[in-house]
Amino acid sequence: MNYKMIGYLTGQIIRALGALMLLPLLVSLIYHEPTSRNAFAITAGILILSGTLVTLKKPENKDIYTREGMATVTVTWILVSILGALPYFLSGEIPNFANAIFETASGFTTTGSTILNDIEAMSNACLFWRSFSHWLGGMGVLIFMLAVLPQNDTRTMHLVRAESPGPTAGKLTSKMSFSVRILYGIYIALTVLETILLSFSKMTFFEALNHAFSTAGTGGFGMTNHSIADYNSAYIDIIITIFMLLFSINFTLYYLLLSKKFLQVFKNEELRLFLGIVAGASILIACDSISIYGNFFKSFRYSSFQVLSMISTAGFATADFTEWSYFSQMILLLLMFVGGCAGSTGGGLKVMRILIMFKTAYREIKCVLNPRSVVTVKCDGKAIDKEVVRGVSFYFVLFMLLSAISMLLLSLDGHDVGTTVTAVITCLNNVGPGLGEISPSGNFAGFSAWAKILLSLDMLLGRLEIYPMLVLFTIRKK
Amino acid sequence: MNYKMIGYLTGQIIRALGALMLLPLLVSLIYHEPTSRNAFAITAGILILSGTLVTLKKPENKDIYTREGMATVTVTWILVSILGALPYFLSGEIPNFANAIFETASGFTTTGSTILNDIEAMSNACLFWRSFSHWLGGMGVLIFMLAVLPQNDTRTMHLVRAESPGPTAGKLTSKMSFSVRILYGIYIALTVLETILLSFSKMTFFEALNHAFSTAGTGGFGMTNHSIADYNSAYIDIIITIFMLLFSINFTLYYLLLSKKFLQVFKNEELRLFLGIVAGASILIACDSISIYGNFFKSFRYSSFQVLSMISTAGFATADFTEWSYFSQMILLLLMFVGGCAGSTGGGLKVMRILIMFKTAYREIKCVLNPRSVVTVKCDGKAIDKEVVRGVSFYFVLFMLLSAISMLLLSLDGHDVGTTVTAVITCLNNVGPGLGEISPSGNFAGFSAWAKILLSLDMLLGRLEIYPMLVLFTIRKK
Repeated sequence: MNYKMIGYLTGQIIRALGALMLLPLLVSLIYHEPTSRNAFAITAGILILSGTLVTLKKPENKDIYTREGMATVTVTWILVSILGALPYFLSGEIPNFANAIFETASGFTTTGSTILNDIEAMSNACLFWRSFSHWLGGMGVLIFMLAVLPQNDTRTMHLVRAESPGPTAGKLTSKMSFSVRILYGIYIALTVLETILLSFSKMTFFEALNHAFSTAGTGGFGMTNHSIADYNSAYIDIIITIFMLLFSINFTLYYLLLSKKFLQVFKNEELRLFLGIVAGASILIACDSISIYGNFFKSFRYSSFQVLSMISTAGFATADFTEWSYFSQMILLLLMFVGGCAGSTGGGLKVMRILIMFKTAYREIKCVLNPRSVVTVKCDGKAIDKEVVRGVSFYFVLFMLLSAISMLLLSLDGHDVGTTVTAVITCLNNVGPGLGEISPSGNFAGFSAWAKILLSLDMLLGRLEIYPMLVLFTIRKK
Repeated sequence: MNYKMIGYLTGQIIRALGALMLLPLLVSLIYHEPTSRNAFAITAGILILSGTLVTLKKPENKDIYTREGMATVTVTWILVSILGALPYFLSGEIPNFANAIFETASGFTTTGSTILNDIEAMSNACLFWRSFSHWLGGMGVLIFMLAVLPQNDTRTMHLVRAESPGPTAGKLTSKMSFSVRILYGIYIALTVLETILLSFSKMTFFEALNHAFSTAGTGGFGMTNHSIADYNSAYIDIIITIFMLLFSINFTLYYLLLSKKFLQVFKNEELRLFLGIVAGASILIACDSISIYGNFFKSFRYSSFQVLSMISTAGFATADFTEWSYFSQMILLLLMFVGGCAGSTGGGLKVMRILIMFKTAYREIKCVLNPRSVVTVKCDGKAIDKEVVRGVSFYFVLFMLLSAISMLLLSLDGHDVGTTVTAVITCLNNVGPGLGEISPSGNFAGFSAWAKILLSLDMLLGRLEIYPMLVLFTIRKK
């Protein structure tokens, strides 16, 4: 392994993280918040200085391959979760460091689970840092750097592959670094649009910006104690619902739209399945909850919001769904596993994997019933590579094994089965809320310090889709 | 498809089922129970008559292949669940027919979930029929017939493959029908031994026989309202614990023992993993529950019993484990998925599949980290066929998809999430108890009729390992 290059890239990330903290520092200056100003200034100073020192000497051998890519991604994400927690800790706004790490990991992995009992007591700078971590984590911390700094193209590819979610990492153009910039452009454009639209509501510009960041990363951190419910505005609900949808769609489809390849977008099977699930689930829950909300339209407003909040893994709330029928709750629970489309900021297993799993299951049944038939799994008219099909099933198996181990460990913390099981599911899928103690009206404060670190690891495993993290356990082997 | 042959074989099964009802009829005569006597006599008469009529004309073409094997197995298991329910219904002891079907499916699939509020109110004949259905279902209804009637060998193979659980159906000898008889011999010998040992306890001979039937099929129906807890005897607990262990081990290992191939048994990886899980889980729970039971030995008595009850999927209870710590409950919940060894009467995913999944996950991680390495999955020193490895992953995916769909449907019945989720898990894995309403101190009586039929289907899907049941949905295609 090229340890020097991993160190060099990590140094660049640390410096970039320090530079990015100048933004919340600016917020603290605007809102005259001296405590958080000092915290961000100190942390930014340390990070920029140490990052610069580490990157002073460029390594001679700059080659990196799959393993180096994965190691870099893993190391940077763990470091970012720890270093990003410093401002919360130093400002005293989250005095427990395990809590601060949990909050930061939850931010960057776009999970959106919180340990805060009183969100409204936080300074604006810290609230901004929470939402901004969602925005950075949504597209990937490394990918952000790749979009900003000039990079070698094969190097970029290995880093992007390790950080991008979904069964396959698509290239838009022949140059990977160019693709990254196009995708970031789309990401920024959509975020700006949402900020503008939200500014026309009860929200101030600052609130609109923060919520746009949260939506864009499909994270879910809000600025009030009851998430979006506190605004109680149909306009805000609808805007956020629409943007949760937009940010859960494969971003390459927007590129295709811009290239006027409408037919390709229209025929995209993953998109169709995603929209089908969203529509079906929203309508079912809306019908199921009419008695609570009085009429179908109001019921649909809440159901579609919650369905998209779950499937996009944003985890916002306009209603406490644990008060809905068990049927509705079960739909939402299952949606947590589905997640957004591959190549979006949504977490979970990804719609693409669900699609491939269903198609594979169908093929497998055919094969068992007609042993001599050979059926290939097709998607968008093209046969899917055997290795991808195999990989999807194994990923699912690995995901479930990991869930089982996490649940077993977490159960040692002594929370009821419903809370324990959904805590692991919500963290591994980067969703946010769960059932029991961690329902939309609760939070993760009740877990002990080690349990919060375990759940932070689950969030990282979920965000990086397991494999890169495993590099740590095999680092000695050549 | 050779429908005539399927019909002919089904006729034979119906006739056999009628003949087997002469045993509970005998019980009703011994205990002077006129109502159940009439019920069994009428049902037996109808089944023997109609079965004989159907089998009067032998089909000319007796060839059957995979699809015919699966179709026969599916049709017979559904019919047995319905026809086997007639005595409960006709005697008036289970007046609701959906309940009677649930109880019968639970019996034959060796699930052991019950809808009875008062088990002790049942007649001895019906109690016998409950336990006896476990014993018949454990090895397979068709396999029983194959062991008794002379059969063509290739035909036998296709039927055995469709009915036997586990990723691969092993052959002990070159002739399949001979293998079936050896396995049945071992099954009967162990059952007789357990009956004798249990007779030396508080139990009467009749109780001993019934509990031996239940243990042998890893079913779990008891004769008292609180399962084995009502006997409150360490001797009984230990005997049943040992036999749950013995009946969860691949029966071919007993054949190897009889053939003095001790080394092969000792080196069997599935057996080692199984014993390791049982020992580990029992010790962990025993340590965790010392505060409840006072000392380690008493705690170990209850923990090992419950661990084996869960992993063997028998589902007996000597204690209400929902009163244990959440950590212990989580272990038990995960053990439900594991199940017994392949080729035993235990349900669940089977230890063999878990072993292959872990090995595959390990290989997959290696492949991702070192893309050029080719690692084969080995078991007992031999490389496992690629198709088997693939099949195991796909089976797991299919199992989880099916669980999700069942949970979604069942949630319409309006039970809390814990009850709904564990009801599906316990039925699909043929375990018996769950959490919430269906904890060891509860039962399935609270579900509505359609929910009971759905759960009965889940039990059948679990027992037959999904694939054969799917034949029904593709029956028209050539």
